[in-house]
Amino acid sequence: MLDQIRILMVNTTHSGNIGAAARAMKNMGLSQLCLVDPIATIDDEAIARAAGATDVLEQATIVSTLEEGIADCGLVVGTSARSRHIPWPLMTPRQCAAQTRAMVQTGLPVGLVFGRESRGLTNEELHLCHAHVHIPTNEAYSSLNVAQAIQVMCYEMRLATIEPETPVAVWGVEWDHPPASHGEIDGMIRQFEQTLVDIGFLDPNTPKHLVSRLRRLYQRAMPDKTEINILRGMLTSVQKLAGSRKTAPEPEGESD
Amino acid sequence: MLDQIRILMVNTTHSGNIGAAARAMKNMGLSQLCLVDPIATIDDEAIARAAGATDVLEQATIVSTLEEGIADCGLVVGTSARSRHIPWPLMTPRQCAAQTRAMVQTGLPVGLVFGRESRGLTNEELHLCHAHVHIPTNEAYSSLNVAQAIQVMCYEMRLATIEPETPVAVWGVEWDHPPASHGEIDGMIRQFEQTLVDIGFLDPNTPKHLVSRLRRLYQRAMPDKTEINILRGMLTSVQKLAGSRKTAPEPEGESD
Repeated sequence: MLDQIRILMVNTTHSGNIGAAARAMKNMGLSQLCLVDPIATIDDEAIARAAGATDVLEQATIVSTLEEGIADCGLVVGTSARSRHIPWPLMTPRQCAAQTRAMVQTGLPVGLVFGRESRGLTNEELHLCHAHVHIPTNEAYSSLNVAQAIQVMCYEMRLATIEPETPVAVWGVEWDHPPASHGEIDGMIRQFEQTLVDIGFLDPNTPKHLVSRLRRLYQRAMPDKTEINILRGMLTSVQKLAGSRKTAPEPEGESD
Repeated sequence: MLDQIRILMVNTTHSGNIGAAARAMKNMGLSQLCLVDPIATIDDEAIARAAGATDVLEQATIVSTLEEGIADCGLVVGTSARSRHIPWPLMTPRQCAAQTRAMVQTGLPVGLVFGRESRGLTNEELHLCHAHVHIPTNEAYSSLNVAQAIQVMCYEMRLATIEPETPVAVWGVEWDHPPASHGEIDGMIRQFEQTLVDIGFLDPNTPKHLVSRLRRLYQRAMPDKTEINILRGMLTSVQKLAGSRKTAPEPEGESD
């Protein structure tokens, strides 16, 4: 299970934090580190703080956008210190570990997303996440160091592998189709947005609260591949009806 | 409870670890730090790594022996990476937090003892402890950084103070709109079905597996009233586009 969990660090500024994160991951048995548009590099400070976990640093992938780093994930959870203007499904670290355990059993990786040292994740990044996780902290002093936050989450992930609580599948029951990946859900949402523009329901110049709410709804439901195909098939029908005045983001042949 | 828990660091070599420990403690609401015969001093590196937790550093006590630091404690637990030649009572971090909670309620402080960066606690020091605690780690790479070990233990201490967990709302977080009733979800699904007929996607005479799958998807997401209104508004738009060849099951005026 643990090698199917990806730790994503967004725009990390201090190389020491990358090293400390690698060490924390390896201590708990994780190995997949993904640096999203990092500001710091893997330098001597990173290697020193990683102690014996340089293999995690060497295998780390670097991507330029969060979307790229999470496209194949079945569950994406972002760490957030505070509630946002649109409420989003929220888990405790322990609940997150249980959900992660269930998801990796389906074969899809899970992404745990950690933000900048200074200000965490942006709203846009948080909205790409299926759920948020909040590590309980002293309210008067809540800002955890990012490597410490990674340590706590990796610890809960490890506990979930060694204390097999009653197995909870993603939907609480054995399912008939595999879960959709983040990229598949995202593709559907983008087609949904385009369809709403095509039928004149959404002005592409207005704020995107509506699309955020749709994204939240569908990500929360953790759709399977068949459900995504059904939705995309419907959207394609509606787009044809609307004369498909705009081009869909992907060839229509793929959408159903 | 948390201010009755004392973190004792024995012979610490790196001042950065003292600073990081102070930060980890304060994040979780602890304040009592005791340095036992420290090799490092509270220098600029310690202050930098403490971030805003310099008050914990300023209030830290320095003692020359472990006995001195734990004399008033009702429970003393030492962290140990490996088993020792004489078996000693061993707790998981979670069990340790529960024992700590019980002890501080009697009015006596609890000491959690953390060893040297290089080789942990000596057998003599471990034998001064009432029990040992082992943080589960990757057996092939088990040596946690001391500040990370303190972070994990303080996290468990904090969890023990806030359990029972705050009641979880439907989505695990306080939401901005009330949940939709079954009738509201049902009305949306019926309009959805009618819309699919209107646009020629669904043959009303075919079996209804498709509609069942949609129902399952939307019910699972536990939509709120606003999400239902958004969906119905969209469906109404599509129905208008389709010329509303059939009559919707409810007057259109009610559907958004």
